[in-house]
Parts: sequence; C-alpha cells; structure tokens
Amino acid sequence: MTFYYPNGKPYKEPCETGKKTIKPMNKNKIQYGNRGMSLEDDLNLTNRYYLERQMAVVHKKPTPVQIVKVDYPKRSQAKITEAYYRRASTTDYNGVFQGKYIDFEAKETHNVNLLPLKNFHDHQIKHMRQVMMQQGICFIIIKFSKKQDVYLLDAGILIRYWDLQHTGGRKSIPRETIEREGYLVPQSYLPRLDYLSVVKQVYL
Amino acid sequence: MTFYYPNGKPYKEPCETGKKTIKPMNKNKIQYGNRGMSLEDDLNLTNRYYLERQMAVVHKKPTPVQIVKVDYPKRSQAKITEAYYRRASTTDYNGVFQGKYIDFEAKETHNVNLLPLKNFHDHQIKHMRQVMMQQGICFIIIKFSKKQDVYLLDAGILIRYWDLQHTGGRKSIPRETIEREGYLVPQSYLPRLDYLSVVKQVYL
Repeated sequence: MTFYYPNGKPYKEPCETGKKTIKPMNKNKIQYGNRGMSLEDDLNLTNRYYLERQMAVVHKKPTPVQIVKVDYPKRSQAKITEAYYRRASTTDYNGVFQGKYIDFEAKETHNVNLLPLKNFHDHQIKHMRQVMMQQGICFIIIKFSKKQDVYLLDAGILIRYWDLQHTGGRKSIPRETIEREGYLVPQSYLPRLDYLSVVKQVYL
Repeated sequence: MTFYYPNGKPYKEPCETGKKTIKPMNKNKIQYGNRGMSLEDDLNLTNRYYLERQMAVVHKKPTPVQIVKVDYPKRSQAKITEAYYRRASTTDYNGVFQGKYIDFEAKETHNVNLLPLKNFHDHQIKHMRQVMMQQGICFIIIKFSKKQDVYLLDAGILIRYWDLQHTGGRKSIPRETIEREGYLVPQSYLPRLDYLSVVKQVYL
C-alpha cells in the first residue's frame, strides 16, 4: 500500500515523521505567494511563527506507530526493525491559545467544489465531539489545492454533515457551505496561514 | 491510548508505542490497591475514565519515531523496516478540561527522597515555559514507586529547580519540596489517580 501526502505525492524515503522537505521552486516560473507548498508545510511554518512570537503553542502530533520489533545494537541507538502505521484516535493538531484549548485537523483536496467526507474517520469525529463537549475550540482547516484558498470551518458543521450522510445525506461538504459558514484564512509570507486571526474573531 | 478487549483485558503484543506491559503480580505477596501498576498504566486508565464520563479529554501523545525505510508488500499493510526513536519536543500528555488547556509530564522514581532533574530534558522545560506563558495549566505528576504515593507539582516549581541547577543548585527536587509545594493525588479503584480533582482545586 502506498501512502500519499495531502498534496497527492507518494510517500518517499527517508523521511522524518511529520516533517516534509520543502520542494525547490522552479526559478524560471513566476511564483505566486506560497503556491507549491503543502498545507502541512504551511501549518508547520505558521505554528513555528506563533511559537517564536509567543502567540500560541500548537504542535502536530507524531504519527502513531505500532512498534513490533526493536534491536538494541551495542554502543548505538535502538533500531526499530518492524513497525506499522496506526490509525490516529485524535486529530493532528492541538495546543493552547490564551489559556484556551485549540484542536484541529487539516485537509487538502483536489476537488474544486467539495470536500469529501471520506477524508475523515469515525475516531476523529468522535474526538471532535468530545472536545466540543469540553468547550474546546475545535475546527478543520481546508485547502482547495486548485485555487489555493484555505478555509477554517467549525467542527460542528463537519459533524452535521457527517451525521446526515448516514441518513441519506451527501458524502461531502459543498464548497458553498464552506464559503458561507466557514472563514477564509488570510495568507501571507509570514505567517503563512494566519488561522489564529480567525480563531480570535470567531471563538474569543 | 490503550485498547481493551470486551472482557476488559488490555490489548497486549505486539507492543504498542509508548505503552508498557503490566507487570505480573507476585501472588504470594499481599497487594495494596494498585501496587504493581505503572504510573503510565494508571494515567491511561484515569484518562479513559475521564473521557467516558465527559469530564476531560486528555491523551498521551504517540512516541515520536523517525521513519527511515518502509516496505510496501503487495496486498498488505505498509511495513516500517527501519526507524528510530526521536526525542519528544513537548510533554507526553495534553488535552482539555472545561475549555482550559492542560499539559503535563509524568515521572516515576525509585528514589525515596528526591526526584532527579535528569528525568527531564531541555526541550520539555522549554515547552512548559511556553505553555505557562500562554496561560495553559502545566504541571508534572510524580510517583514515588517505593511508597506508591503520587503528587502533582506545578511546572513553575520544576522550572525554578531546573534553572537553579545551572548556577550551583542541586540536581534534584527534594521530596519535602514536593510534599510542601505539590499536592497529593487521591488514589482509588476508579479513577486510579484523580488528578483532575487537584487541578480543579489549584487552577480553576
């Protein structure tokens, strides 16, 4: 089974968990803003920016791995020789902003007019419900890779669509809903994706 | 996160990242309460209890692993064949309690009268400072395994000792300090370690 990054590129080796190398830009081509960067790269840079400026502490959680075999060679580092990817039981990002708990999942889609619900799984939705019950700030960040625009959508709206699909509802969230009920995330050189400015406006 | 079979037995082998197996109890010896359970096991059970009762959403972060080689056998799951443990850049546990961000590290020590500072590393201390700057609730949970008592100590006190060691201070936190400035965590069958009762009292 091949694993794919959110931008559709297959997983290559070697690679550090949760960290991607930045693609070299084509110098003969005009670059508009951060085109070519994946959503995860942009969020990592944004979170680093927030951290350095003491604006928020948000980290991506490590990829969960089930470790089966470990070698302990003499005088060197323990080497994991058999392990498997596990399905995450929570969302990818969480942290603290002015004392408040923040929790979100980020998804990039090549679809122009919708976000398919198959981008999420039961455990994540359950986790989002739990966070909302506990009055945490919970949302998703959606990047439409064709147009390169990024939206913040409250988890409650995702959950509404998630529940409706089981009673005959559609299997995706239409772009119109995301535009109408979500918030466009401002993009710039730094911070790349200023989602905190939206959080401040919407949740505080 | 620990998985359980319907009969309540924890999922064992193949071993899960960051999870210790429960030590078999010596049947010829009288067991008091949950003696023999590791601090991590107790915290996992406690967090599951809180989650099920909608009291808080707290998870242990997956162990960070640097993945070097992955095999993609046909018709089966991707197999990681070379990987290494990475040093965590944050603490092990975080989550949300009544909208507030909670963040902590748990340490068990065989020492009777002190907690050595070498149980922590620079990155974790830096992370704790950042969380405190952001008004997150940040502490450590310490288990003295000989006496089996467990304390909650505010991260600020750990940081005070951490900084003092660099200017000739001691390389450990004495038990007296932990008893005087920390809080004994109530232990029972369920929840195992009711640290939220202390958090409510101290931080809210």
